[in-house]
Amino acid sequence: MRIGELSRRSGVSVPTIKFYLREGLLPPGVATAANQAEYGEGHVQRLRLIRAMIDAGRLSVARTREVLSALDSGRLAPHDLLGVAHDAVTRPVRSDRDDPAFSAARAEVEALARRRGWFVEPDARAIDQAADAIRTLRALGADDLLGLRDTYADAAQAVADREVAAVVARRDPARMVEAVVAGTVLGETLLNAFRLLAQESASAKILSAPDVENRGPASFREKAKGA
Amino acid sequence: MRIGELSRRSGVSVPTIKFYLREGLLPPGVATAANQAEYGEGHVQRLRLIRAMIDAGRLSVARTREVLSALDSGRLAPHDLLGVAHDAVTRPVRSDRDDPAFSAARAEVEALARRRGWFVEPDARAIDQAADAIRTLRALGADDLLGLRDTYADAAQAVADREVAAVVARRDPARMVEAVVAGTVLGETLLNAFRLLAQESASAKILSAPDVENRGPASFREKAKGA
Repeated sequence: MRIGELSRRSGVSVPTIKFYLREGLLPPGVATAANQAEYGEGHVQRLRLIRAMIDAGRLSVARTREVLSALDSGRLAPHDLLGVAHDAVTRPVRSDRDDPAFSAARAEVEALARRRGWFVEPDARAIDQAADAIRTLRALGADDLLGLRDTYADAAQAVADREVAAVVARRDPARMVEAVVAGTVLGETLLNAFRLLAQESASAKILSAPDVENRGPASFREKAKGA
Repeated sequence: MRIGELSRRSGVSVPTIKFYLREGLLPPGVATAANQAEYGEGHVQRLRLIRAMIDAGRLSVARTREVLSALDSGRLAPHDLLGVAHDAVTRPVRSDRDDPAFSAARAEVEALARRRGWFVEPDARAIDQAADAIRTLRALGADDLLGLRDTYADAAQAVADREVAAVVARRDPARMVEAVVAGTVLGETLLNAFRLLAQESASAKILSAPDVENRGPASFREKAKGA
């Protein structure tokens, strides 16, 4: 197919396709004449993967290129390849490793992972992310909220087991990478948005039980404006 | 106590305390002489609340002032006051309401909330957040990942019920606001960091089962560098 058809099929504009070609994210088509090339089904699929990384996963072009070259090298075992994709969408934490409160929190996260039989490498960024949150809660004297650690870990584990099963069920390495990138980021958004809704609901039910069913149009957002 | 003692007690520097006083976040102490004031226990507590909002909740000074004035007005019922705090830490979504795919995803989220008996107001930002994630997954053709909706909702609900119970158990309105702000943000970090760790672990167990226990020092992060 020509580039115009590739654009229609993939939903990616022609200038953007040309940008991806120039940046080496999309392999060139087969040249058929000066300034004309033929593209195949593989290009449609590659464009979907690039979109998943750049739009859904919010990866930079450089990061996207790194993940694609790990995929294209064909040298990584599936778990290692997915680890590269997973890392690409995981935010690093600026953490002060010399801070004893941070080290203590980090040790606590490692102990929790061990207790649960989680197989995680010691340089996983998520250990730092969790440690940073625990240190901050402790600094605020929020022991009651810290007590929810295992509630979070239980929920996280239930979700992660099904997510990874869905990724692995795709079998094709490129489709698995796509699921890791899109699923890690969008799954986080979905999980947290549902959590916010469930919090609002639980608060309404506990704190304003008598009139929960019949609050009428004066929402707290409107009331707050008049406060 | 004098401002130096207030700084030691709260862990907030004297210049920062003066900044909060100027910005009206912290009420003035009782003037005892020209350029000297006496502060009380209430100031220590208020400083902890301000820190929770600005450091943990990453709120702007303006947003912090809004939440504090809702608290200080004393005019809002607890659920409405917590709603103001909750909204302050919830990111708005730039969503295109005219996009039929977004509207369809939004209707889907509302149906899910109804089915679960969640009491949420129709202008809750988290409805838009969830709808945006669902629309993007659908555009990527990721029906397999969309199928995890109820898994996310189950996990979210289990977590939210305990979080709200912990908030309500604090009883004091200022301490409840503190828990909403810090807990919403840091709880999200903790939940997601644990999810990333559990994903890494599930992937290791499913995809590299034979040598999970004995992988040695060559982690996928090191292998990827050589790929």
